[in-house]
Amino acid sequence: MINIAGGVTAPKGFYAGGTHCGLRKNRDKNDLALIYSKELCDAAAVYTQNLVKGAPLLVTAEHLKDRKAKAIICNSGNANTCNADGVPKARLTAKALSAQLGADPGDIIIASTGVIGQPLDVDKITAAIPALVNSVASGEAANESAALAIMTTDTVVKSVAVSFDIGGKEIRIGGIAKGSGMIHPNMATMLCFITTDAAIDGVILQTALSAVVKDTFNMVSVDGDTSTNDMVCVLAGGLAGNKKITTFGTDYELFSAGLYKVMEELSKKIAADGEGATKLLECAISGAPDKDTARICAKSVITSSLVKSAMFGADANWGRIVCALGYAGADIDVKKIDVSFSSQAGNIDVCKNGAGLAFDEKKAKEILLCGEIKINVDLNDGNFSASAWGCDLTYDYVKINGDYRT
Amino acid sequence: MINIAGGVTAPKGFYAGGTHCGLRKNRDKNDLALIYSKELCDAAAVYTQNLVKGAPLLVTAEHLKDRKAKAIICNSGNANTCNADGVPKARLTAKALSAQLGADPGDIIIASTGVIGQPLDVDKITAAIPALVNSVASGEAANESAALAIMTTDTVVKSVAVSFDIGGKEIRIGGIAKGSGMIHPNMATMLCFITTDAAIDGVILQTALSAVVKDTFNMVSVDGDTSTNDMVCVLAGGLAGNKKITTFGTDYELFSAGLYKVMEELSKKIAADGEGATKLLECAISGAPDKDTARICAKSVITSSLVKSAMFGADANWGRIVCALGYAGADIDVKKIDVSFSSQAGNIDVCKNGAGLAFDEKKAKEILLCGEIKINVDLNDGNFSASAWGCDLTYDYVKINGDYRT
Repeated sequence: MINIAGGVTAPKGFYAGGTHCGLRKNRDKNDLALIYSKELCDAAAVYTQNLVKGAPLLVTAEHLKDRKAKAIICNSGNANTCNADGVPKARLTAKALSAQLGADPGDIIIASTGVIGQPLDVDKITAAIPALVNSVASGEAANESAALAIMTTDTVVKSVAVSFDIGGKEIRIGGIAKGSGMIHPNMATMLCFITTDAAIDGVILQTALSAVVKDTFNMVSVDGDTSTNDMVCVLAGGLAGNKKITTFGTDYELFSAGLYKVMEELSKKIAADGEGATKLLECAISGAPDKDTARICAKSVITSSLVKSAMFGADANWGRIVCALGYAGADIDVKKIDVSFSSQAGNIDVCKNGAGLAFDEKKAKEILLCGEIKINVDLNDGNFSASAWGCDLTYDYVKINGDYRT
Repeated sequence: MINIAGGVTAPKGFYAGGTHCGLRKNRDKNDLALIYSKELCDAAAVYTQNLVKGAPLLVTAEHLKDRKAKAIICNSGNANTCNADGVPKARLTAKALSAQLGADPGDIIIASTGVIGQPLDVDKITAAIPALVNSVASGEAANESAALAIMTTDTVVKSVAVSFDIGGKEIRIGGIAKGSGMIHPNMATMLCFITTDAAIDGVILQTALSAVVKDTFNMVSVDGDTSTNDMVCVLAGGLAGNKKITTFGTDYELFSAGLYKVMEELSKKIAADGEGATKLLECAISGAPDKDTARICAKSVITSSLVKSAMFGADANWGRIVCALGYAGADIDVKKIDVSFSSQAGNIDVCKNGAGLAFDEKKAKEILLCGEIKINVDLNDGNFSASAWGCDLTYDYVKINGDYRT
């Protein structure tokens, strides 16, 4: 499997674009993205488990009942959530876009991200649609234009595409994502749009997506807040020419591995670009008695404000890691826990069998001053493992969120 | 019921003191506290639910099996947790103190707070015990000396005492507490030592403590991290002369109300003095279908990093409150939620039936610039209510925790 350029436009038959429709004040910042497939696609999606759900998610879930879609439209600057007229406005967007595309409104996926509880100026969106539809293209520039349009407090574009073979046919999967704050996914997360030219049945595609999201996006936390508008969706256009995947087997495994790669890379990009972050953190749990225990422990450590603050200060305060394992809610034997830190500057063991080791503070500092830090925890109680990704907690997180809305 | 001076020494028969034994480098900071009762007391305690438990908690739980105790000794500067030799050192402390007091080692309650996973220099404690025992006294100065000794990143002394009558006899309850970071109690929290001259049976006392802690300390969160060393204990000396409380009834209710008052005030003091905090936040849930729903919702809002950051910035970003209610894990109808903010500067409604209201941003800012802010949430779905307390998330939280250990 290799990484390729072009993001969501890398798979055959997909086009993308972005524009400034006026929802955001900064005219230099795109705020409306479109991803379009020539073919009607098999589609799958997962949504936030927050009881408060954005209007676009409700409309999208309705549209995806038949597991078919042709386009994705997404605005930033307004979440269209907790608005009494949110659903009709989301429907209006779908109608305007489908008319322009000559498609069925039920084949449109709609997403919004931004401030909760402010009325959406939907006229700005509908007015911008005709020109946006005319501007879509394939290639890196078109992909970036769309990726920029879905960003909020993100500081970098998050895009990945991979290429691999199934049955002698080249398959491509591409994705873009946004997310920096209110990141603590549960079953789905943030916004992530994935395209593929693989031919794959909608039910099988949904199974693959739901399985992969558990070990990728759902293992990311920036601030412990599960958003109201999280959504990951995949469009499969089928132009790769592979024999359509309709059962579980080798082809399904190959496709899932490709999907995993795209979603894992995007997950790490989101964690690294967490609001105010200066460091990407990974907590890698090994030796767990089962997969769930590994996941729960990894996520508890990566979510701890005290661990995150210590990593910001490059302080090897491993007691906070053991503490977060202790309150994780998993059934673990704290007397078996080993902890080490690693980065490109090396590796250092700090805790063995739940008790502290004497270690070289200077070396620990060097390791923790790097931009990517791995917190390794061996539970010594089985063969399962899991990783979670997050970032350090910094002054800038507070700054960004102290005055985000005003 | 009235507030009185003297903290843990307010009830008849109790004495306290504090000293610098050398665990902390700053010689001006007390680091060893003693609370002593002339009488052998009925005693009750609750402990952290973190699987990782400090050695002093393990020894204390063993000592309190008979529900009797005579003294509490507590050091700051070292948590004596995740140390292979933690338990023997805690026992040694109990032995040294009991010898000096002429008491049974099994009647000593031991507590430690500070950094996790660093060997405890127990000789410093045992060397300081004789002078500390000789120095205990009653009154405000002695109480403060003990209260100062248990503080870590706390910036203010947390002490309360109340007086009320049971059956014509004056009952006093006093308490001191510490806690500023790693504050997200589960069943017990931080360190809190409570004394009373009420005569009350140990089993009844335990019931009262366990009930009250649910609505007081367990409703506080500073940073979502449940500590390894949380403990609340109560010593009841019996010198008030009331008829010993051995059953549930009027006397029990009166005692519980007094205990509630002491524990609620200490809880609020801990929230207000959260690491880096500039504001005390209360989330008051009403209209809940049951008590647990009210508690879960209140705690979810008060724990949200995004809500906490918005309060720091005096930003009336109520969408984050509704978001935190949505992921709380309670079964609520998001379309019935009303939200308002209040403080000494007034009250402002911002959300009705789950959707935003037009409101005066300037007035909202005035309200949120105050030092104590109440977030009022009506679920409009029943008659139960609960409050949780917390604080804003500030630059200083990050600063304090970026280099706490080194």
